[in-house]
Amino acid sequence: MVRILKIGGSILTDKSRPQSPRQEEIDRIAGEIASASADLVLVHGAGSYGHMPARKFGLPQNFDREGLLQTHQSVKLLNDLVVQALVRQGLFPLPVHPLSSALLRDGRIERMDVTIIKEMVTRGIIPVLHGDVAIDSSKGAGIVSGDQLVSYLARVLKADNVSLGTDVDGVLCGQVCLKTIDRGDLPRMEEFIGGSNGVDVTGGMRGKLMELMDLADQGTPSQIFNASREGLVKRALAGEQVGTLVRRRA
Amino acid sequence: MVRILKIGGSILTDKSRPQSPRQEEIDRIAGEIASASADLVLVHGAGSYGHMPARKFGLPQNFDREGLLQTHQSVKLLNDLVVQALVRQGLFPLPVHPLSSALLRDGRIERMDVTIIKEMVTRGIIPVLHGDVAIDSSKGAGIVSGDQLVSYLARVLKADNVSLGTDVDGVLCGQVCLKTIDRGDLPRMEEFIGGSNGVDVTGGMRGKLMELMDLADQGTPSQIFNASREGLVKRALAGEQVGTLVRRRA
Repeated sequence: MVRILKIGGSILTDKSRPQSPRQEEIDRIAGEIASASADLVLVHGAGSYGHMPARKFGLPQNFDREGLLQTHQSVKLLNDLVVQALVRQGLFPLPVHPLSSALLRDGRIERMDVTIIKEMVTRGIIPVLHGDVAIDSSKGAGIVSGDQLVSYLARVLKADNVSLGTDVDGVLCGQVCLKTIDRGDLPRMEEFIGGSNGVDVTGGMRGKLMELMDLADQGTPSQIFNASREGLVKRALAGEQVGTLVRRRA
Repeated sequence: MVRILKIGGSILTDKSRPQSPRQEEIDRIAGEIASASADLVLVHGAGSYGHMPARKFGLPQNFDREGLLQTHQSVKLLNDLVVQALVRQGLFPLPVHPLSSALLRDGRIERMDVTIIKEMVTRGIIPVLHGDVAIDSSKGAGIVSGDQLVSYLARVLKADNVSLGTDVDGVLCGQVCLKTIDRGDLPRMEEFIGGSNGVDVTGGMRGKLMELMDLADQGTPSQIFNASREGLVKRALAGEQVGTLVRRRA
């Protein structure tokens, strides 16, 4: 049993301002995680810690070595805030930085040895990964989003519970939040899955759905839910459906 | 052509006090590296940033999850000082953290994908690794010394130039600094290779020699030199012998 929880950067930071954590939200979510922390891999988005420097340096289109470093060091600051919040809950997190461990090819994870992550989980440690810059064997460098990490890890770790906390209730079709979505629903959803709030270099809801549809096709469903609503992180980790279920086309 | 340079923690920090960088030494060494930075992998010791928290938490004998985190976050502070000093020299360093990338077994590196490091070097980036804590598949956790990283990386990257900067002139036999050493010299050297200055949880000169003898046996010689003497880092990177050469037994 492995659970993968992703918390979007828009929950943890104010995406409209650089390096602006929402400390109360970070602490609240750490508290909800504490209720169900066994066998958990946590991934968080980069929020304004990552998207703003990435945009400033023209990443990922430009291969800017200074931009890579600045973006990476910036997202590690957010990672440490998340890790320290978990520590205050009595949990045992350890950071795992994608720049040190994941190699991309054309923007997709080509190699990532997850043995370290597995060994951590086995020992009661919560690996805490994050959206990051990464070396790309074909393009020099790129960005590995938290969403892509979730999709990759869920597949190779054969996760039983995959939940993505965002700042919306799930996949919205106008005012209605869908209970389920599969690849067959995409054409009629085009107008609703445009972007995400604030600056986002990794594709917003569209990017998220593409990752999760691929994952669903391979047999692992996941859900997109609203992590800004109190209690939903805890319920999602407990296995309850609290948002839109992304599943394989029936 | 790949060069591997290790700078000992005793050069970069005051090993007698916690988290005490020698900023002038860090900057001087970064300047010497700038003269010969192509095709370089840099490894630095943890110094007082690593050895002191490690000892406090009883690492590596104890598997202490809080100690792992605190030690890791501490050595990352020193890593950032080194990285920033290189940036001020106009170089393009990127950190590579062993906790995210190396898995130990019984204290030895069992798996470490060096493709990311290779790709960085190809692109004019200096990967900057450091002594760190790491997950150990047999013992839970352990310490991966900068010396072990050098030995491992030199072997798998087939390095042409391997230099280890310490705070002594090389391998000392009484007052005399040896020009060369091989495995056959070890018995008569026992009394001289006891420890290193300050607290060291990774074996001091003895540990260093064991790593480098193994490397030499596999065909890669290396040198131990005094990085606190101005100009020697630069000369070592240029391929000059400036300390004790560790070579295969004739």
